[in-house]
Parts: sequence; C-alpha cells; structure tokens
Amino acid sequence: MSSCFCKSEAQKVKLDDKYLNLEDPNHPANLICELCRLFYDNNWVTGTGGGISIRDVKGANPNVVYIAPSGIQKERLQPWEMFVVDRRNEQLLRTPNECPEELTKKYKYKPSACTPLFMSCYTLRDAGACIHTHSQNAVMTTLLYEDKVEFSMSHIEQIKALPRLAINPETKVVEKVGSMDYHDTLVIPIIENTPYEEDLTDSLQEAIKNYPGTTAVLVRRHGIYVWGEDVWKAKVYNEALDYLLELAVKMKLAGIPLVRGTSE
Amino acid sequence: MSSCFCKSEAQKVKLDDKYLNLEDPNHPANLICELCRLFYDNNWVTGTGGGISIRDVKGANPNVVYIAPSGIQKERLQPWEMFVVDRRNEQLLRTPNECPEELTKKYKYKPSACTPLFMSCYTLRDAGACIHTHSQNAVMTTLLYEDKVEFSMSHIEQIKALPRLAINPETKVVEKVGSMDYHDTLVIPIIENTPYEEDLTDSLQEAIKNYPGTTAVLVRRHGIYVWGEDVWKAKVYNEALDYLLELAVKMKLAGIPLVRGTSE
Amino acid sequence: MSSCFCKSEAQKVKLDDKYLNLEDPNHPANLICELCRLFYDNNWVTGTGGGISIRDVKGANPNVVYIAPSGIQKERLQPWEMFVVDRRNEQLLRTPNECPEELTKKYKYKPSACTPLFMSCYTLRDAGACIHTHSQNAVMTTLLYEDKVEFSMSHIEQIKALPRLAINPETKVVEKVGSMDYHDTLVIPIIENTPYEEDLTDSLQEAIKNYPGTTAVLVRRHGIYVWGEDVWKAKVYNEALDYLLELAVKMKLAGIPLVRGTSE
Amino acid sequence: MSSCFCKSEAQKVKLDDKYLNLEDPNHPANLICELCRLFYDNNWVTGTGGGISIRDVKGANPNVVYIAPSGIQKERLQPWEMFVVDRRNEQLLRTPNECPEELTKKYKYKPSACTPLFMSCYTLRDAGACIHTHSQNAVMTTLLYEDKVEFSMSHIEQIKALPRLAINPETKVVEKVGSMDYHDTLVIPIIENTPYEEDLTDSLQEAIKNYPGTTAVLVRRHGIYVWGEDVWKAKVYNEALDYLLELAVKMKLAGIPLVRGTSE
Repeated sequence: MSSCFCKSEAQKVKLDDKYLNLEDPNHPANLICELCRLFYDNNWVTGTGGGISIRDVKGANPNVVYIAPSGIQKERLQPWEMFVVDRRNEQLLRTPNECPEELTKKYKYKPSACTPLFMSCYTLRDAGACIHTHSQNAVMTTLLYEDKVEFSMSHIEQIKALPRLAINPETKVVEKVGSMDYHDTLVIPIIENTPYEEDLTDSLQEAIKNYPGTTAVLVRRHGIYVWGEDVWKAKVYNEALDYLLELAVKMKLAGIPLVRGTSE
Repeated sequence: MSSCFCKSEAQKVKLDDKYLNLEDPNHPANLICELCRLFYDNNWVTGTGGGISIRDVKGANPNVVYIAPSGIQKERLQPWEMFVVDRRNEQLLRTPNECPEELTKKYKYKPSACTPLFMSCYTLRDAGACIHTHSQNAVMTTLLYEDKVEFSMSHIEQIKALPRLAINPETKVVEKVGSMDYHDTLVIPIIENTPYEEDLTDSLQEAIKNYPGTTAVLVRRHGIYVWGEDVWKAKVYNEALDYLLELAVKMKLAGIPLVRGTSE
Repeated sequence: MSSCFCKSEAQKVKLDDKYLNLEDPNHPANLICELCRLFYDNNWVTGTGGGISIRDVKGANPNVVYIAPSGIQKERLQPWEMFVVDRRNEQLLRTPNECPEELTKKYKYKPSACTPLFMSCYTLRDAGACIHTHSQNAVMTTLLYEDKVEFSMSHIEQIKALPRLAINPETKVVEKVGSMDYHDTLVIPIIENTPYEEDLTDSLQEAIKNYPGTTAVLVRRHGIYVWGEDVWKAKVYNEALDYLLELAVKMKLAGIPLVRGTSE
Repeated sequence: MSSCFCKSEAQKVKLDDKYLNLEDPNHPANLICELCRLFYDNNWVTGTGGGISIRDVKGANPNVVYIAPSGIQKERLQPWEMFVVDRRNEQLLRTPNECPEELTKKYKYKPSACTPLFMSCYTLRDAGACIHTHSQNAVMTTLLYEDKVEFSMSHIEQIKALPRLAINPETKVVEKVGSMDYHDTLVIPIIENTPYEEDLTDSLQEAIKNYPGTTAVLVRRHGIYVWGEDVWKAKVYNEALDYLLELAVKMKLAGIPLVRGTSE
C-alpha cells in the first residue's frame, strides 16, 4: 500500500462515492485522516495502534459510522480507505476493498478490531465520535495503580474541560448536564486487557454502564477509549484526559496525592 | 463550528469589519491565531484551556483589546472569532456572534472567562498583551511548593530575559527600568485556584499590587498569567518563565536548591 | 555539501539514472530521504548517526539495495546521494560520486559503515528494509540492564505490533507466521558495542542466528538495528519497539517489572 | 519589529546589499535564520537567548563573520537583520540599522553580547561557525556536577560524532586529526557564569587554550558554546553534544556512571 496517494490522484481516477467528499475538510473521512496525523505526532497511535471513528451526526443519515481499517499506519491514512457501518444494525455500508485498485494497490483491508468497542460507545452513550489511543501516559497510569480498578484525580483546573454526565431520571439515558468543576473528583474506570481487542467489549460495556459519569475507559497495559457528543468534543476530552494522565504520572512519581486531601 | 475556515473563505463572504485586517499578519486578531497555534504545540492551551489577549497598542485606538472566545480549540481559532473590548470601560466593541453565519456555522460565542483577569493586567500594569497557559511546568511547580505563596529562583542565565520593574516614585506607576540580572532572585507570587476563573480576579489583582516587580502570577493547580509591554515582550517573558519553571521542576526533583546558597 | 538541493535543481541538471526516479515518492531512494527526516525529528539519527537501507523488493531486480552514505546529516539527504549495492555479491551498482558535481559540490561520499550490518539482515533474514537508530530509549535500556544479554518485556498491548517468527522446519528459513500476542514475552538480544561499526557484524549475525524469533538487535551504549519484510513493516516494527523501550525505561525507573509476574 | 517580513517584501524594497543574497539558501545570513528556527524548536534559543554566528569560509573574503543582533526572537530572524564583522580587526562591515526602515520598522539593533565569545572561537580555533545555546541538558549537567570543572563521558557511540583535535607540534595550532573513538573519554570544560555575557570572554579563552582537545565549552547555569570547521560541522557537533548531555542527565539521575569503570 502506498504512503503517498494524494487528493489529486484520487481525483484522476474519478472517485465517485456517496460516502466520501474529498472537497470538504470537515467530512468524517477527511477528519479521521487529519486527526490521525495529529495523534501520530503525539505518540498516541504509534506503529498502526489506536485510531478514531466518527459518526456522521450532521449528515443526512446520522447512523452512518466511519472507521479506519485494521493494521494501517494511521498518519498515512487516506479518506477512501475507510469502512462505513450503520450504527443500528452494524451492517457494512462501504468497504475500501471496492476502491479502484490504482488507489489501494490491491491491499486487502480488514475492519479495525476496535469496531465492536467503538460501536458500544455509539450504542450505549449515543456518542458522535470515539478515540482509542495507546498513550504512554494512560499505560503508565494503569501500571502505577496496578491494584486499582479506578483512576481518580481532583483539584486540577484541566478537569473542567470534561463533561458532567448524569442519568436522566425519566429516560434513564446518560446526558451531559454541564462541565465538571475544579473541585470535583474525576473518576475513570480501568478494565483489564485481553489477548484480543474485541474481547474487551464486555468489560468496556460493563464499565460504561457502571460509571455513568465517565466519558472514557482506561485499559490496563494498553491505552484508553474516549468518546464525546461529536468529533470535536471527543478530541477535546481526549486531550484534556491525556494532559491529566501525564500530570498524574508526574505527581505520583513525585509523591504528590492525586486526590487532594487523601494519601492517593 | 468548523475547524477549517480559511482566509479565502472569509474573503468570499466579503468580511468587512473595522476591527479585522486579514491581510496584515501583525494585526492583533491574526497574531492571536498564530500564537495560539504555537502555544498548542507547546501543550500550553490543551483542550480549549488558556489563551492570549492583545491590546492594539500601535493601532488608532490603543484602548482596543482583542480576546478569544471561551471554550474554543485554540489551535483552530480564526481572526473573525474575536471579541473586542474597550479597556477603559470594558464596553464590548465587537462580538463574533455578528459574523456572517457561513463563517461561524451559527456557533454561539461567549467571552472568555479570563476576560476580567486580562483586563486587570491592562488596567493595573498598562500591559500590551496578556497570556494565560495551563503549562504543566507551572502546575507542577505549584504542586512541588504547595506550602509556598511565592516561587523563587536565582543564578540561571535565562532570568536575564525577564524585565526589571520598579515603582516610579513620582507617578507611583510600575515601570520597566531594565532587565533582571543573572544573580537576581526571580520571585513570582502563587495564588490559590478558585472554582470559577473569574473569581481569581481579586487575588490576581492583589498579587499584582503586592509584587510590583513581577510580570506574572502563578495559579496553584491551574497555570500561569504572564503579561508584557506588547505582544512580543509578553511572548518572550512567557517563554523564558516556562523554561525556568521546566528547569525548576527538574532541579527540585534532583534535590538542587532553586535559590543558590539556600536549601530551597 | 549543500543542505538545500531540491528536486527542481536535480531536474535542471537532467539527472538521468536508472537507479533513481524523482517523480515516484515510493521509490526507495525517495523513501530513504522521507523517513530519515522523520527519524531526525524523533532524535533517532542525531548528528549524522543511524539511517535506513531499503531493498527494492517490488522493483525489477529485488536484489538491489539502497544505502545512504556515511557521515551525512540524515535529515538533509537527497535521493541522488545513495549508494546502490547488489545483495547477492555486494557489488557496487551505483555511487553518488558519479553524480553531476552541481548536485554534490564535489563532496566525496563513502559507503555507510553500517553496510555489512544491513547486508547481514538482507542475507540472513531476507529483509526488505533495515533501520539503525541511536535512540536514547535503546541506549538507556542497555545501560539500565548492563548485566543482561537480553531485553525482555511482556503484557503490553504494543507488543502485538511485532511479528511472530518461526523456523520453517522444512526449509530451515525464519518466516513470519503471524503477530505476537499480548501475553507473549518479547525478547531482543543485546550485543556489546565495538570501536568500529563494521566489527559488530559477527556478533550481530550470531544474535540473528541465536534468536530466530527476533526482528531486532540492541547494541549496548549505541542503539538498535531493526528489520522487516518491507520498508513499511520495518518502520512499524521500529516504532513499536521504540515505544516499548521508552516505556521500559519509565517502568524500570518506577520499579515496575518489565515481565509481569517476575521481579525483572 | 515585525514577525512576518518575507523575502518578497524584501525584494519589493529592492534590498541591494553585497553582504546578502536572498536567493541562495546556503548564504550565511540565510543559514543563520534557518538554523535558528531549528534551534528554537529544540528549546535551545528560547526567549531571545542563544544563537549562531557563521564565518563565510567559502565566500570571497573568508574573514567576513555574520552575527545575529542582541535580544531578537531567534525563530523570527530575517537575513537583513545581521551584523557583519571582519574577523581580523573586529571592524563592523554592516549593521542592520542601515536597512530600509520598511523592513525593520525603525527597530534599533544592537550587536549580540556573544560577539566577543564568537570572535574568540574564530581567532583561537579558526572556527567556521559558532553556536551558543541555553540547552536545559547543558544547564542541568552543570548543576548535577556543580563541584566539577569538567564534564567527562565515555563509551557511548555518539561520542564518535565529535572531532579528535590535536596541537600540530610544528605550527602549534589545534587541528582536526580525525574523529573520537567509542572508548575515548570526552572532556568538556565547565566555566563559571558571569553577570554580563561579554565578561565570559577571558574564562572562555582560557578554557579553549587549556583544553586543546575540546570543540565546546559549558557555562555553568547558562548553556554551552560549540564551534566547528564550518556551519554544518558546528551543527553536527552541537547536536551530538546535546544528545550526550541529555543522556548524561538521565544516566546521572539513574545512578549510572558517565565514565565506564569509574564511580563518576
């Protein structure tokens, strides 16, 4: 597979595909490519790991979900390499394997192993986008707290970038009711890693249900899953969380408690 | 809100606004965008936090102050998204909410919660620009010295990049009288964080008054405010301070006193 | 030697060379330049150290090997500065010293001292590309485990990015049979450094033979050699290994065993 | 002073100056700008500190020395902002204050306080370029070895990037006779900082004379001076030294001796 297909090449082969719009930089397939390059520079998707999925919440059919393929260098992704899935029934709407072979050099794409995990966030939380990284800050946090099943932190300004979530007593649905406060204690569940990524699905879903206030799940010795109402919220939540996890590692190693007033 | 408006789009909608000049890269609204991208790459304005405000000190009306809106990804700011305020009476001269909706996609902008803090620097110190970051070096310093209300450091060459300030005995105004010396002790006050950013105003103003020699205030578990005579001085002071705070954290963790000849 | 030759200059001097194709970004000579710039940004090839060699596995003659010259700033390499060697007999097919002097300013190029090491990977493992870095994560790992001749790590998700290799019982050749699992223990041999790079050849070859499961060899106080089936695999393996070595240094310094369930 | 003059602007004002050549990217005035941007990204010239001077060793008059002005943001330097000095008599050949005022906005430039230090390297060692950084790796090394007047390190591959220097017994001049070996002990003198940069001149000159084998001098709590036969050698030596100083700090903090087989 080539590292250097560019838009002009795609235009030369007259790529006509209702799930793509190369001209619109805010189209989900283009945003996935742009954000994966950013995440690569942050060491979050090193060596084909991690990724981002976007649901086309503002498109004609908001159940359409874009997912990058498995095992691809994320910083070199092209918009026509996406799988497209219907959120309601997980039906495959588009595969990059139907792309003109000039664009893919006959590479055989497989859907990301993260697919059932991303779908869990779409289904259980009505997410608009879902990010998965192998951030070393996330991995180190789960190692420094190897005996804990939760990460907790309080009294850091950056916590205010995260959403305050609550179960709507009438609909029983988790809804955003504002932002966290400076003195709130942020709690992120930590689940144990499994040999195969798809086997994380049950414990991820359980964590999502048990922690209605969380917008992320840490995976021990692996990384983090973060979701949000739309792609930009998910990006901001993930950035804020990674900032906090980076700080948490420094604080722990310096002997500073993460929750003010406790010994933790 | 879009991530990818570009100058050409703004020109297409014939943006005519006396507070903007898209052609001049040194216009305050353009510099705010340029510097926010730089600050984002430094992890100083992660996840919509922090920012910069510029007073148009060389413009027709030097009381005109440009401030980015609240809750926006700082690396994606566009010049037409600025609020403009008169320093004398805090009157709102321009809001991005009046922008053509093609440019803002009907996003409802709110003024930054930092506004009263930036205005304090403009009023009490006649600043030309004011920077607020969530720098982890600043946060870690306030955590490593949690029982201190001042940060002190001496005998590091980079201290010379900071201004020597003194009260003019006649006018009672703080003025720059030169640069700090290598053997001077740099002292930056640390104020306690508050749940709401605007509630920092009183303690920030108090610190500014009590420390006539400082060009910055640290906010515990939050970040730093830095100001200067103009945008470039503010940028240089903030860079030099962050360099010193980064070094201070390393020195403290290595057991090296920050003030030479003391145990601190 | 100039730092700023560009493609257009090369075209002006009508560079006609069957071992180059300036128009194809996926040509080995161009990829070496692109990847060396990336490696430079990662502090892997600082100050002329390290590099990458590519075998033209998809070209007309897959025995053709491209190697950057010795002592050159890797981020400033140009495609016409490559040596080209036949893998079978190590015959020199092209030297940059035959290039038009406008392009090289009469610089006298010497083949990289890594040449016999790269050739060992091509010969013993049928590699498609070979990377050598001076990564500080690699050097620190060999220093923190100065009494060990192997680096071992288990139960980190990123290990899954590395290949599972096994000796084919019939052909006796090492072949890729899949990817490593999360719970596998990654083992990379560490060889001792020698005064001259070429003197590493014997111990590198011995390590390659003794560790049929490895796709890399660490060199104490020096760096790492990594190879793969093609250039992209080699890049991904090297990235994944550097991520693991970075994490290993952090874990070791924090007192966390690298192999879960042991004291190591 | 503007941050955004560009070549086209300079061409508009018909800049005609025998000490500049905007078209040639390898001209000393252009290289100073290019390298200062690189150094800024490395946190080596933060907040106007540090810089680089180049002697036009391949030009018509190899005694012509280019030096950036004092107190300028190094990443925003423009080629026409340089001072030009004759190495033999330190006569000022060009000042940026004679530049068309459209280009400088009447900014009053002063020669860098590093000028006598750079000139010392040109005079005593016949250097072709001289770099001064405020690298935190350099500062931390001088702090971790506060009681030492020399930095020593051995048995790290990167040492081989540094030159082997020796006094020619006939001419008594220090000459490059090759490169350092892996098992050599690199020794860099450390001089004490002074309140004014120019007051470092005597001790820098003394260190240069007392350490004929060195191509650099560390300045305690300040940074490093590095020189080389030409601009690219100076760049490579500085990069290699910074790599070694970064590693030295990590090794010292991890309790690993810098000179193998000793307790240091």
